[in-house]
Amino acid sequence: MKEIMAVVRMNMMNQTKAALTSAGVSSFFAREATGRGIGLVNRQLLKGAQEGYEEAAELLGEKGRLYPKRVVSVIVEDEKVPAVIEAIIEANKTGKPGDGKIFVMPCADAVRVRTGESGTASIAD
Amino acid sequence: MKEIMAVVRMNMMNQTKAALTSAGVSSFFAREATGRGIGLVNRQLLKGAQEGYEEAAELLGEKGRLYPKRVVSVIVEDEKVPAVIEAIIEANKTGKPGDGKIFVMPCADAVRVRTGESGTASIAD
Amino acid sequence: MKEIMAVVRMNMMNQTKAALTSAGVSSFFAREATGRGIGLVNRQLLKGAQEGYEEAAELLGEKGRLYPKRVVSVIVEDEKVPAVIEAIIEANKTGKPGDGKIFVMPCADAVRVRTGESGTASIAD
Repeated sequence: MKEIMAVVRMNMMNQTKAALTSAGVSSFFAREATGRGIGLVNRQLLKGAQEGYEEAAELLGEKGRLYPKRVVSVIVEDEKVPAVIEAIIEANKTGKPGDGKIFVMPCADAVRVRTGESGTASIAD
Repeated sequence: MKEIMAVVRMNMMNQTKAALTSAGVSSFFAREATGRGIGLVNRQLLKGAQEGYEEAAELLGEKGRLYPKRVVSVIVEDEKVPAVIEAIIEANKTGKPGDGKIFVMPCADAVRVRTGESGTASIAD
Repeated sequence: MKEIMAVVRMNMMNQTKAALTSAGVSSFFAREATGRGIGLVNRQLLKGAQEGYEEAAELLGEKGRLYPKRVVSVIVEDEKVPAVIEAIIEANKTGKPGDGKIFVMPCADAVRVRTGESGTASIAD
């Protein structure tokens, strides 16, 4: 079982929802977040900061604005992971920086509160 | 060490908080989220979408509204996991769809910022 | 690969951002949350609640207020974990209860949506 946690553009939620549904995923949840990817960072400043130039770090810290994002979480069986990743990429790829990241997190177990079912039964459709 | 991440109804936070406390858990955090479970999805549409009918996928994507939820996270030692799950179920079970899901995520380590303590000492009460 | 998930004070985001940048981390995301640590709980009440005194549990449940927090998530290669933890501690340590917690979560894989790259390439700067 895995949690697929995708950080995507705010205005991509409907497309992502539709793509997940087409991939056979009915249950998921989403949260608001702010974030920043490497594409939005001045690389020269970053290099300077990493080399210990405090000014560079300060400039980055102030100017490296965080952008509003959505974090979508889907918990699925291992077999479904590639299809879900594919669906999220298809829905969110514009080719421009800020398209987002997908993280695959191990999930040891799941429980459906209403029935007490656990394991894959609890996340089956 | 595990993170127990529970997606519950918005109006169940107080009961969940009380149940966690009774189970000996003092530290946790919660986030707002929106979510959808299988109970809120038209199964015929879902089946259609999974079989590749684009119309079904579109209808689901548009109409499958997301509901406001709370995501509660508790990080505990492995021994406490069953008691925490039990407490969350007891506080949140109404028997109706939408009661929520509990996910058990592996947690490799924890650090208390104030003291620098890590491991189980950092999450001990 | 690990997700470092830090629960910190609301007003510490700028410092945390600067510290992460200095540690060579350019990508991260943050969420609002509410939370409670052991420092904010009446220990006598907690002990009573754990021993089964319902009144103690009720008092804790009602009075144990949750405080606004920020949850910062950074996904990095394993080698970077100690430096990132150190940076977060340095930025957030005041020595007072409420400084926060850092959790280290296993991350099985990451994918950059724009390019489809996965593994460490997807989180490299």
